[in-house]
Amino acid sequence: MKRIGNYTLELENHPYLEAFGAVGGKKEKEGPLGEYFDKCFIDTTLGQDTWEQSESKLQTEASQLVLEKGSLTQNDIQYVFSGDLLNQCISSTFGLRTLNIPFLGQFGACSTMGQALAMASIFVESGAADRAMAVTSSHFCSAERQFRFPLEYGGQRTPTAQWTVTGAGAVIVAGQDVPSKQMTTVYPGVTKPKRVTVSHITVGRITDLGVKDANNMGAAMAPAAAQTIADYLEDTNTSPQDYDLILTGDLGQVGSELLEKLLRENGIFIGENHNDCGLLIYDRQKQDVHAGGSGCGCAASVSCIKLFPEMAEGLYHNVLFVPTGALMSPTSSQQGASIPSIAHLVHLTAE
Amino acid sequence: MKRIGNYTLELENHPYLEAFGAVGGKKEKEGPLGEYFDKCFIDTTLGQDTWEQSESKLQTEASQLVLEKGSLTQNDIQYVFSGDLLNQCISSTFGLRTLNIPFLGQFGACSTMGQALAMASIFVESGAADRAMAVTSSHFCSAERQFRFPLEYGGQRTPTAQWTVTGAGAVIVAGQDVPSKQMTTVYPGVTKPKRVTVSHITVGRITDLGVKDANNMGAAMAPAAAQTIADYLEDTNTSPQDYDLILTGDLGQVGSELLEKLLRENGIFIGENHNDCGLLIYDRQKQDVHAGGSGCGCAASVSCIKLFPEMAEGLYHNVLFVPTGALMSPTSSQQGASIPSIAHLVHLTAE
Repeated sequence: MKRIGNYTLELENHPYLEAFGAVGGKKEKEGPLGEYFDKCFIDTTLGQDTWEQSESKLQTEASQLVLEKGSLTQNDIQYVFSGDLLNQCISSTFGLRTLNIPFLGQFGACSTMGQALAMASIFVESGAADRAMAVTSSHFCSAERQFRFPLEYGGQRTPTAQWTVTGAGAVIVAGQDVPSKQMTTVYPGVTKPKRVTVSHITVGRITDLGVKDANNMGAAMAPAAAQTIADYLEDTNTSPQDYDLILTGDLGQVGSELLEKLLRENGIFIGENHNDCGLLIYDRQKQDVHAGGSGCGCAASVSCIKLFPEMAEGLYHNVLFVPTGALMSPTSSQQGASIPSIAHLVHLTAE
Repeated sequence: MKRIGNYTLELENHPYLEAFGAVGGKKEKEGPLGEYFDKCFIDTTLGQDTWEQSESKLQTEASQLVLEKGSLTQNDIQYVFSGDLLNQCISSTFGLRTLNIPFLGQFGACSTMGQALAMASIFVESGAADRAMAVTSSHFCSAERQFRFPLEYGGQRTPTAQWTVTGAGAVIVAGQDVPSKQMTTVYPGVTKPKRVTVSHITVGRITDLGVKDANNMGAAMAPAAAQTIADYLEDTNTSPQDYDLILTGDLGQVGSELLEKLLRENGIFIGENHNDCGLLIYDRQKQDVHAGGSGCGCAASVSCIKLFPEMAEGLYHNVLFVPTGALMSPTSSQQGASIPSIAHLVHLTAE
């Protein structure tokens, strides 16, 4: 591991993504990426009594799924990094309590998949683990009740609001020397998949430009994404054009435009190769999701069912994955506080 | 870094605690450790409008304090690991937003200081950082409102209930090669302080023995502590008698007795050299705290104002620090769920 510039780590051993996958809900199945989910639950209760338990079940399902895809058991994994947006991260702790793998709870709001993937990669890179898992989730119904209104209330949504993804994604990071048990099954139909590896990590700093509108998370998070991307580009002395894709977490339409504007003002032009998980997961016109998708499950599922597989297939070689998170709570918003935010960057290369 | 047994990491470079300190509230000042706090706030609002902002301020104060004690600036620290028990960890994110250090939010409930210290140590050990900070907090008033009753309600407390510590502790972990800027000021009055170093880390697995009483956290957390301690002793082939002190996080009276019983049933006898942060911070008889102290700020402040300084002075050489956490939320308890828990172990040696 090598420190580069002020904020970036170079992972010289290139830990790789051995297995990945995601589960989703009904709306996610109906969306443009529906067919790529490993499993979707049309009954979004997942047979549970409460929405919190439903979300927990998403994490249980996603973590089991990647173990199966990698032909691995719990004993093959030394650490699991997990988090979510529910109070006290209960979908992670309840969803993974039977996994029996040393557990490190992560909190980065919707950026959690970036943080968890970064931590798993650093643990593997440093030799602390042969394999580590990153898993996160969100559920529209548990999020609405906790952050906005109970579903029964039928609240109107603002045009800038985003739609919390019902889904969970999981990925297993392994050392290059660790013999893969069943690589080919991870990418069905791909005969010679490339290894998706983690090359660099830039951990974000908290930013707060004073945005207070809890119905416009994209605007609150865009400055954090801009800062982390600028930090990384400066540290590595590269430009956006050196990458096939810059994929932010869940800025949605409003936040994506703002991100491009903020970077443009600093002479960084990402428009052409920028996309956002929150824009990919739904058909914004047909699915009435307003500004796009959000939630920890957004970046997690889009990366695990679209980004990583497409890199394995050779469609992208060099990608910056930048999940973003709004670090507020309903309490802080009710108290009139602004919304601090963060974005973590993971540079992925297909080898 | 070397993996030992199933769950333990040996930190061969022995990262050390360069600076540490804690701030507390009025009740903490009146307790047996009152004189050791770097600063106590008799007005526990800390001049803020809300209890959440008061708790945030505790983190701001604690983080500034250790920077000053180490004669360091923000630029000397590469990462800050922080978390707390408020919904969406807002005391960490708001309290540290002006720090401008790459931020990695941690969630381990009251075990968070163990987790944050472990992560900071692993980052330094692996070369990801020269220096990393761990900081956590809790506040009696914000915790009561969120987890139990608003103060104005005047609810009765059960005998097994614990008292949430108003306080925040912070510690800076540094590599042995990193030149200390002002070591002696950290331990005023100690002319030749020993370096407190991190030798081993055992990350806990989630345990859940079905305890459902949210007013008896000690009982819920004791099995996690027992499991982690047993894991560590087996991995290192050592016994409790090899250590000067085994200091658990906040099991309090009920949980401490249960921990000793659980371990005894497995042939492990920790009674003589076991103590608990929740038992040390208050005078249980005089201060009406029932089973003892708890909260992220409990293990954080007791370690930063008592354990680490006493190790530096040479009173203890070889200590297992084992903060414990209950991974539930008010929602999960209201839904009748049991309380999953976790404990992380950090083996400290004075050199």
